[in-house]
Amino acid sequence: MPIGIALLGAGKIGSAVADMLLNESGLLRRRSGQTLELRHVVEKYPERITAVKIPPRLLRPTIDAVLKDSQTQIVIELIGGLEPARTFVLQALKAGKHVVTANKYLLAIHGPEIFAAAKRAKRCISFEASCGGAIPIILALTKGLLANDIHRLVGIVNGTCNYILTQMMRSGQSYGDALAGAQAAGFAEADPTLDVNGTDSAHKIAILAGLAFGAEVPISAVDISGIDTLQDADLKYGKELGYACKLLAIAEKIDGGISLRVHPTFVPADQPLASVNGSFNAISVFGHAAGHTMYYGRGAGPKPTASAVLADVIDVAMGTAPLLFAQLPLLTRRAKLKIVPTRQIVARNYLRITALDLPGVLAQITAILGHHGISIAAVVQHQSNAGQYVPVVITTHEAQDGAMAEAVAKIDQLKSIRGNTVRIRVLGTEG
Amino acid sequence: MPIGIALLGAGKIGSAVADMLLNESGLLRRRSGQTLELRHVVEKYPERITAVKIPPRLLRPTIDAVLKDSQTQIVIELIGGLEPARTFVLQALKAGKHVVTANKYLLAIHGPEIFAAAKRAKRCISFEASCGGAIPIILALTKGLLANDIHRLVGIVNGTCNYILTQMMRSGQSYGDALAGAQAAGFAEADPTLDVNGTDSAHKIAILAGLAFGAEVPISAVDISGIDTLQDADLKYGKELGYACKLLAIAEKIDGGISLRVHPTFVPADQPLASVNGSFNAISVFGHAAGHTMYYGRGAGPKPTASAVLADVIDVAMGTAPLLFAQLPLLTRRAKLKIVPTRQIVARNYLRITALDLPGVLAQITAILGHHGISIAAVVQHQSNAGQYVPVVITTHEAQDGAMAEAVAKIDQLKSIRGNTVRIRVLGTEG
Repeated sequence: MPIGIALLGAGKIGSAVADMLLNESGLLRRRSGQTLELRHVVEKYPERITAVKIPPRLLRPTIDAVLKDSQTQIVIELIGGLEPARTFVLQALKAGKHVVTANKYLLAIHGPEIFAAAKRAKRCISFEASCGGAIPIILALTKGLLANDIHRLVGIVNGTCNYILTQMMRSGQSYGDALAGAQAAGFAEADPTLDVNGTDSAHKIAILAGLAFGAEVPISAVDISGIDTLQDADLKYGKELGYACKLLAIAEKIDGGISLRVHPTFVPADQPLASVNGSFNAISVFGHAAGHTMYYGRGAGPKPTASAVLADVIDVAMGTAPLLFAQLPLLTRRAKLKIVPTRQIVARNYLRITALDLPGVLAQITAILGHHGISIAAVVQHQSNAGQYVPVVITTHEAQDGAMAEAVAKIDQLKSIRGNTVRIRVLGTEG
Repeated sequence: MPIGIALLGAGKIGSAVADMLLNESGLLRRRSGQTLELRHVVEKYPERITAVKIPPRLLRPTIDAVLKDSQTQIVIELIGGLEPARTFVLQALKAGKHVVTANKYLLAIHGPEIFAAAKRAKRCISFEASCGGAIPIILALTKGLLANDIHRLVGIVNGTCNYILTQMMRSGQSYGDALAGAQAAGFAEADPTLDVNGTDSAHKIAILAGLAFGAEVPISAVDISGIDTLQDADLKYGKELGYACKLLAIAEKIDGGISLRVHPTFVPADQPLASVNGSFNAISVFGHAAGHTMYYGRGAGPKPTASAVLADVIDVAMGTAPLLFAQLPLLTRRAKLKIVPTRQIVARNYLRITALDLPGVLAQITAILGHHGISIAAVVQHQSNAGQYVPVVITTHEAQDGAMAEAVAKIDQLKSIRGNTVRIRVLGTEG
C-alpha cells in the first residue's frame, strides 16, 4: 500500500521535496522499503512554481481536499511563517494526518500547542528540517543521545550569518560588503533581518534546547544579539589571536536552571566549531556519558532541507515516528526550568578599548578589571605615537558576565577612554 | 511493565552499561519513558569486575538462565571477539530476544548470518556502538539520510591511531614513541596490532558501507594499510604543506562498483576531518541530496560506548528498532556490487623521493610522472650540498592510483634514487 502525501507550499524547499517524490520514487522505495505517493500540492500561487513540473491534477488552491482524503496519511507543511501554517497543521492533525514540518518559527512560538494537538489526535509531528537543514540533529537528540543527561548545546545554526562571518574573516571585508556579497551569492535573503539579528538562531536553539533538556523553552527566554553590529577591526584582531568569529546559539544547564543565548563569539582555532565555514552549520552537544559529539552539514538549501523532510516522511511511513512520539516524554511532558539571566554565566572575553596612549591608562583599566575579579589572559597594544588614541585589545580568563559588563561600563567612564569598549565572548575549552 | 535486560560480558564497557542501568535508572526513565531492569549479568570471570558493584544475585556463569527467562526481552552482547559471542547472539535471537551489540568484529565477519537469523526469529539486532563509539552514525545512515543516494563515506574510526597521529604531528614524536605514549595514557592496548595495522578500521568501514550503500561488503574487499609503517619525516613535511595525517577509512561508489580502503592520508587543513584530533572519531557522509554531513565524537571509552549501547536498548524497548529492522531493506536485502580495485581510484598524492642532488634528476622524475599522465602540484626540495642524497617532496594533482604506483616503481629504478619512494594519498576537496 502506498503512503499518501500532501504537500503544503511549493516554494524552493517544497519544490525540491516534490521533485524527489515525483522523480526519485524508485530510490526512495529501494532505500526505505516505502512507496510514497504525492497526492496533493496545495499552493496559492501555482504560477510561481518553476523548479519542478507538478502534474496539474495534483495542484489544489486550498487544504480542503487534503483534509477530506482518507488516503492521505502525511501532510508536509512547507509554507513557513505563523499563519496559515499554524491553522493548517492543527487542521491536518485533527483530520488524522501525521505532520512533517520545517517551520522553526511556528514550532518556536506555537510548539506546545501543536505538540498537544498531535498528542490529542494520536498523530505525530516530525520536524528534523526545522533546525540545521540536512543535519540529523533532532534524531540525535530524540534517539541517539537519549541515555544522556545533556548539559550543553553550542550551535552554528544560521548559514547566512556563518557565510558572512567567514567572508569577513577570510577577506577582511566589512559587514556591509560581506552581506551584499552573501545576497548576490544567494546565501542571504533580500531582507536578512531575522537571520543577521539572531532571531532565526534563537528559534532554533529554543527548539533544540527543549528536546535536549526536556524543558519548556519560551522564545522570550533567549538573550539575543546578532552579527549586524560587528566591526571588521575586531574580526581582524580576533584572527590575530587565533580565533574564528561565529554566531553561536548556546543553551546550558547552570545553577539548577538553563541559560539560553545567541551572540557573536570568538572560537579558538583548535575547537571543531572554528572550522565550520561558509554556509555550513554544526551543533555540538555535551552529554554526561557521550561527552562531546558534533553534527555538521548544510544548514539550508532546497535539497539538503528536502533530505531532512523526506527522512521524516519515511520515519512516519514506517510507523517508527508515531511510536516514538507517543512514548517520548521529551516532546510532550516538559519540565519548567528556571531561566538563568546571562549576567550569571561565566565566560572568557575579548575587549577592545580605545584608550589614550599615556602612562598609567593601562594600569587604570587593569585595576578596574582586577577589582571585579577578572584576570587578564593577554594584552595586545598596537604601536602608536604617545598621546594618541589606540586600540588596546585584552583577553580575559573566565569571569562572571555581570561583573564583566560592570567593569566595561566603568572603563568606559574613564577620561582617557573614547567611545564604547567592544566586548566579544570567547568560547571556553569544553567546546 | 519493565523491560528485562541481560548483559553478556562485564569488562570495561559492560561495567559502564551495568553502572548506568543500576545507578541511573531514574535518568533513563525520565528521558526515555522506559523502565529498564537489569536481570542477568553473564560473566565468566566475575572476580575481575571492579568498575561497578553488581548485586551477586544477578551474576550468572553461563547464558542458560538468560535464554530461559521469558521476562528478558533484550540481550546486550559486550563480550567481543567471534566466539562465544556469535553462538550467544544466535542463541539469544532463537530464544526470542532482541540483541544489542558493540561487536564490530563479529558483524564485519558474520553480519549476514546474524541479520538473517534475526529476521527469521522476527527479532532485531542493533549495533550503534559497533562504529564510532558515542557517535550516532548508524542512526544517521539507517534513518537520517535514508532519502539519499550515498556515494561516499570518509571516516576517522580508530581512536588509537588518531591519538598516535595527533601526537606525532604535534610534537614531532616518532611512531614508536607516540605508540608508547598512547599505551601509557590508556589510548592503546598492550597489543595494538589490529588498531595500528588498520584491521579495526576495516571492520568498521565494512559495516558502515554495507548500510550506506545497501550492499554486501565482505571484509576481504577492503584494501588495508595501517599507520605502523609511517615515518616521522613525512608527517613533518606534511605539516609544512598544511596537511594533517589521518588514518582514513574510505568507501565510495565508482564505475558502477564500490571501492573500500583504509590508509594513512594527508588531509588539507581547511577540511573538517583535519581538525579531528586525539582519540576523537568522525565520519563524513556524502549524499546526493544532503551533500556533506559529518558526525564527530568519542570513538571509544566505556561511557561513550555505553551511551550508544543504551540508546539502542531504549530504541528496542520502545518498539521502534524492531519496527525499523523488519522493514529496512538496507539491513537484510543487500545488493551484490562489484568491488573496484584501488588501482582504479583517483587521488592526489604526496611523494617523498630520496634523490641524488644532481642536475637532471628532477627532470627524469617529472618525465616519468608526465609519461603516466600525472601532473605535479608542487615540488619542495630542501637545501643540500650538490652531489648528496636529498628528500624531494612532490605533491600531484588527481591521478589514477594504478598509474601512480607504476610511476613510483619506475622512479625507484632510477640510478640516482635511493630506497623506496614514500607515497601518501591526499584527500581531495569533496571531503
